Amino acid sequence: MLNLSSPTPPQWLTSIESHIDEILIDHAHCEKKAASTAMNLIFAYVDQVPIVLELSTIVNEELDHFRQVLEVLERRGVPFRRLKPSSYGQRLSETIRKTEPDRAVDRFLVAALIEARSCERFDLLRTRISDRELAGFYDSLFESEARHYATYVQMARHFAPADVVDRRLAELSRIEADIIATGDELPRMHS
Amino acid sequence: MLNLSSPTPPQWLTSIESHIDEILIDHAHCEKKAASTAMNLIFAYVDQVPIVLELSTIVNEELDHFRQVLEVLERRGVPFRRLKPSSYGQRLSETIRKTEPDRAVDRFLVAALIEARSCERFDLLRTRISDRELAGFYDSLFESEARHYATYVQMARHFAPADVVDRRLAELSRIEADIIATGDELPRMHS
Repeated sequence: MLNLSSPTPPQWLTSIESHIDEILIDHAHCEKKAASTAMNLIFAYVDQVPIVLELSTIVNEELDHFRQVLEVLERRGVPFRRLKPSSYGQRLSETIRKTEPDRAVDRFLVAALIEARSCERFDLLRTRISDRELAGFYDSLFESEARHYATYVQMARHFAPADVVDRRLAELSRIEADIIATGDELPRMHS
Repeated sequence: MLNLSSPTPPQWLTSIESHIDEILIDHAHCEKKAASTAMNLIFAYVDQVPIVLELSTIVNEELDHFRQVLEVLERRGVPFRRLKPSSYGQRLSETIRKTEPDRAVDRFLVAALIEARSCERFDLLRTRISDRELAGFYDSLFESEARHYATYVQMARHFAPADVVDRRLAELSRIEADIIATGDELPRMHS
């Protein structure tokens, strides 16, 4: 359903379990970044009202999640701070084509794939992590990531026929899987 | 209360009344811009959690207003479209000092003054405009602009002592009044 070309490698969960505080801080930054990506898309495609309305709802939801992660950090006594992001988002963004309408298709599909990977990882976290409070937290966020994934794919279809979008999604999904397979030396939500 | 150094000139209301559709479109863009300004401040001062929490609430409220203006446009059968902004925001932004923490103080105070001027104009619109539906709409938005003004001034005080902030606010307020006095050839919310 999420169109990911590969599952998260089992070692990801092992590698992050001893860095949960850092993962939470990274997660807060990811929610903030997700909000700002949707905001940038509002500015880029502002004359497409139905899309802009969907995007503005996404910004609000991502910022709600951002605040929720900050509350979890506060409750755990972990100070929020700046953090070097994983290379995942940057590497995916480099695949975005430069000319419209291809650019729009790619921007929405890259956003969709990031939501899909987050969703797959939230599923791992909610079912496999030993900390029950955190497992419950990731369970509460799981559904919206799946929904945002589907909404972004739908939005991409405003800019190209469905079969063209689906072919490009399959292509970008393979690239995404390659980036995930390469990994990242930092323990991150998308390492 | 709003620390504006001059009231809106009476001719502003006359000049916009025959361009209400354009004013509404401009207003939608202003709400979007206000949301994005708050988002940019989140990124700039992300390690100041209390400020970031306030800002994220402001983003959500500005986007709610953005959606409300789009609904008003839809109801009136006015297509939303891109629109050349007034020079007001750009000219105010040019006054922002380059070095921290002065830069932070100025960014929050400029945001405050824009909210203050919107608030003052929403008050004119809610009391003086002949279209009752629109008068009611501006009445419903008035309170949040006043509140955002006060919140932005408070946030500026995280970056400098209150008396320094107040002196700079008075200075920027005089500059803002000069920009308003110069006007803009386009009929705009801040012309």
